[in-house]
Amino acid sequence: MYRVITQLSQLCIALLAMAWMLMSVNVGVAQNAQASVEQWGMYELTLAGPADGNPFVDVTLTARFVQGDRTIIVPGFYDGDGAYRIRFMPPTQGAWQYSTAANRDALNGKSGELTVGPPTVGNHGPVQVVNTHHFAYADGTPYKQLGTTCYVWNHQDEALQRRTLETLAKAPFNKIRFCVFPKRYDWNRNEPIFYPYEGTPPNLWKKDRFNPRFFQHLERCITELQQLGIEADIILLHPYDGNHWGFDRMTAEEDDRYLRYVVSRLAAYRNVWWSLANEYDFMKEKQESDWVRFGEIVHHQDPFHHLLSIHNGTRIFNHTLPWITHASIQNGSAVEDAARAVLYRDVYRKPVVFDEVKYEGDIPRRWGNLSAEELVHRFWEGTIAGTYVGHGETYLSDDDILWWSKGGVLKGQSPARLAFLRDVLEQSPAAGIEPIDKWQNPEFAGQSSEYYLIYFGTAAPKTWEFKLPSKATPNGEMPTDGMKFTAEILDTWQMTTTPVAGSFTLAKRDDYFFGDKDGRTLELPGKPYVAIRLKRSE
Amino acid sequence: MYRVITQLSQLCIALLAMAWMLMSVNVGVAQNAQASVEQWGMYELTLAGPADGNPFVDVTLTARFVQGDRTIIVPGFYDGDGAYRIRFMPPTQGAWQYSTAANRDALNGKSGELTVGPPTVGNHGPVQVVNTHHFAYADGTPYKQLGTTCYVWNHQDEALQRRTLETLAKAPFNKIRFCVFPKRYDWNRNEPIFYPYEGTPPNLWKKDRFNPRFFQHLERCITELQQLGIEADIILLHPYDGNHWGFDRMTAEEDDRYLRYVVSRLAAYRNVWWSLANEYDFMKEKQESDWVRFGEIVHHQDPFHHLLSIHNGTRIFNHTLPWITHASIQNGSAVEDAARAVLYRDVYRKPVVFDEVKYEGDIPRRWGNLSAEELVHRFWEGTIAGTYVGHGETYLSDDDILWWSKGGVLKGQSPARLAFLRDVLEQSPAAGIEPIDKWQNPEFAGQSSEYYLIYFGTAAPKTWEFKLPSKATPNGEMPTDGMKFTAEILDTWQMTTTPVAGSFTLAKRDDYFFGDKDGRTLELPGKPYVAIRLKRSE
Repeated sequence: MYRVITQLSQLCIALLAMAWMLMSVNVGVAQNAQASVEQWGMYELTLAGPADGNPFVDVTLTARFVQGDRTIIVPGFYDGDGAYRIRFMPPTQGAWQYSTAANRDALNGKSGELTVGPPTVGNHGPVQVVNTHHFAYADGTPYKQLGTTCYVWNHQDEALQRRTLETLAKAPFNKIRFCVFPKRYDWNRNEPIFYPYEGTPPNLWKKDRFNPRFFQHLERCITELQQLGIEADIILLHPYDGNHWGFDRMTAEEDDRYLRYVVSRLAAYRNVWWSLANEYDFMKEKQESDWVRFGEIVHHQDPFHHLLSIHNGTRIFNHTLPWITHASIQNGSAVEDAARAVLYRDVYRKPVVFDEVKYEGDIPRRWGNLSAEELVHRFWEGTIAGTYVGHGETYLSDDDILWWSKGGVLKGQSPARLAFLRDVLEQSPAAGIEPIDKWQNPEFAGQSSEYYLIYFGTAAPKTWEFKLPSKATPNGEMPTDGMKFTAEILDTWQMTTTPVAGSFTLAKRDDYFFGDKDGRTLELPGKPYVAIRLKRSE
Repeated sequence: MYRVITQLSQLCIALLAMAWMLMSVNVGVAQNAQASVEQWGMYELTLAGPADGNPFVDVTLTARFVQGDRTIIVPGFYDGDGAYRIRFMPPTQGAWQYSTAANRDALNGKSGELTVGPPTVGNHGPVQVVNTHHFAYADGTPYKQLGTTCYVWNHQDEALQRRTLETLAKAPFNKIRFCVFPKRYDWNRNEPIFYPYEGTPPNLWKKDRFNPRFFQHLERCITELQQLGIEADIILLHPYDGNHWGFDRMTAEEDDRYLRYVVSRLAAYRNVWWSLANEYDFMKEKQESDWVRFGEIVHHQDPFHHLLSIHNGTRIFNHTLPWITHASIQNGSAVEDAARAVLYRDVYRKPVVFDEVKYEGDIPRRWGNLSAEELVHRFWEGTIAGTYVGHGETYLSDDDILWWSKGGVLKGQSPARLAFLRDVLEQSPAAGIEPIDKWQNPEFAGQSSEYYLIYFGTAAPKTWEFKLPSKATPNGEMPTDGMKFTAEILDTWQMTTTPVAGSFTLAKRDDYFFGDKDGRTLELPGKPYVAIRLKRSE
């Protein structure tokens, strides 16, 4: 399925690339809002207003969108050159009325109506949490997270950005993490193409005057990703600055103003996720209470309640807080073993996304020299635990273009295997892959009585005696005598799927297991990284 | 150290046993309170009041204890025969004034003063949380939890209770989990010696009339444990009733009244911990909101804020809630591997006690037939993770007396090895055993630069090249070149400690490790369950 999307996406990207070249970077003031828009599309209302004083600070603007009993208050923002915008992502079809409220006459009391039509092909709406530990698009289509990270691909020159998008169009990833602010770190010492504030680089900024071109460019990146069917996991703050630009140590007033501005601009993009920070605990100038405040600001400022989390260094954040939608975790150790990863699920009762598990690569850092086999293995262990995992790649390169930081091209062996995994995920139950017997038989996952994945990891068994735990799903579905299953052997490294002849018929063995009624045993290749997939046939 | 306590305790137990035989079970109304009491002892104020109507429901009684700026409000309770009691555990020495408030004249406005002296030998006060993940007594003495479980030892006949106490006096355990209510389950079908309510067994109870004799007996059990230096982890509710007595499905009013009554009676015993439930999620008549209410009731009703937690079946409770002092967790899988157990620590930022990790025994249940080796191994993995573990034993027996349920005698091989572990713990740093490099080298624990335990688990290496992670402790203590360490080899199963000749001198090897400056290697026995202990010598 995602391959079809990928091909469509490649076409789109070519068209967009042409459009990009034709447009000036400063797109200027948009036309007044279109009268109709698709569900989960973006309705942009543009109003002309004062350009004097400091519009970023002096002017307050919101619009109230109403459909029947439902009201959504949407914050507006100043986009430079006297243009003010309000962006609305309609969650339902039909007519919506709006009216504005502002502390300037030119912007106050404007009203109108828009008609929302059905979503077009490829638009499934924003991703949301379903079944406690999983995700789906707003239209109900399952979303099986398989992410990657290119922290500052968006801050590189245009040619490199294009190369990154071309790579993504062919890659299996359906989410990418990247930063709003530029990054200064090993293998990444270049200045960005735009700066977020007016002022003089590297660090004389007017922190009360945003640079609209910076944000317009960020929005174009998000739109390009949307066209590729890729979610944009926007990292709002990060520590890789070291006071070079000083965006890692702004005042509380500056931080809060920045968060409100960026959320007002981006919240109507349906593919946006909010990540308050990368490695929040490495930002030594912030206290934990700051992060709670930031989370509450983003939660309240975003009328559409996109997914929202925060990513740790070594100190795990309290993901039980109510505004956190899913646990975004850095911990490579946890996905070495499904029985580790599963522990976070229980604790948070939310989806768990291991957004950093170390990277495939060869740099002299212990977080950046996993073998491809090990990284793919971690994805599988995370999958079997009922969680989701993220990719990154850090191969040394003469041009200092490492995927993990700047994007470009992928050099590793894992993406092809992750495409194989994504195929498996796309064909797995819509309700999600759940641990079957979490503390006893962590290698079994799926949906009890319907679908099982059994992953052997680094073990290399030559045979496997058919057996299934007698555990029920949360909805009470239990294996019973006589149920029949077909089996396939998945070589997760060689990317092969080998059907096993015949079928297997359940017969209760003891309190804890069912076996096959004839005691059948499967032959396995005797290599690591093998899984069995069982599907109910009757 | 605990062996000395143990011997003293054996003496005490013999004396208490004689006292018990001399006393009638119904001890009658206590004398008026003593004028002086030791710190963390119990000051009991007894007042005569009305015996008519229903004193358990009709009468409200509290006392206000004041010392300088400090005020503690202590709830009173009705103990039958017209006697009302208020029990105060003085947290500080010196003079305290008290005055009572009640809705009955006979109990209202009574006042007086008591003098609190220093604690006597063996009284270290209640156990509290220190250093985020660890425990200490109120006087600062470290408390290294090493618990066991005998769910209803207190409900057995007197001879069996005595046998249990004699066993405990010789065992290494410093905490025991047991239930207020009787238990009905496999290997445990007998009726208890007392019932908590007036009424007719098995299930015609006056749930608004407690049976003081039941609670007086429970208090005697707690006192006996206190004399042995053992904490009483009181399980307030549990599912092993099945409506035989109906204590597992009382109304909200009945539950709340019961909790307030039992907490009013027991909160002045310094060795009490509260466990809201065993396997709370197996009590199908309760909702999670009930448990939150129960936790808040116990927290508010207990003037001395004893340790308070709740123990799960398969659904982990939200231990981040503010009234929970430590995470009491059932999960055997988590302590098979220190890198699993450590994950809960980070999430909760509280001490983690694995109060159920399956039991040493031979019953045909997968939770009750661990080998002694495996149980001891789990204690060690938990220890290395910076957490604490609990013991249980389920050997089949003709008399159906399984330690885990009824107490009696220990038959297994683990307690001797747990005594060895307790010796190690007692000699370990007061600040607690901390993971040194939690996600990279989970086998290292201790206090960086001072003390290390390196545990090899089921691996059986014959040599170990000396190395230490270059990680700092939370307070920033870092290994540096030239630090010297002595080494001992601990065989955790054979219970031997073998010093290694000479010392080891740190020399930085790379970004992540120090080695010995001469590249020294240790010879190991090539058996499983071996640890190395390193202590800084200069």
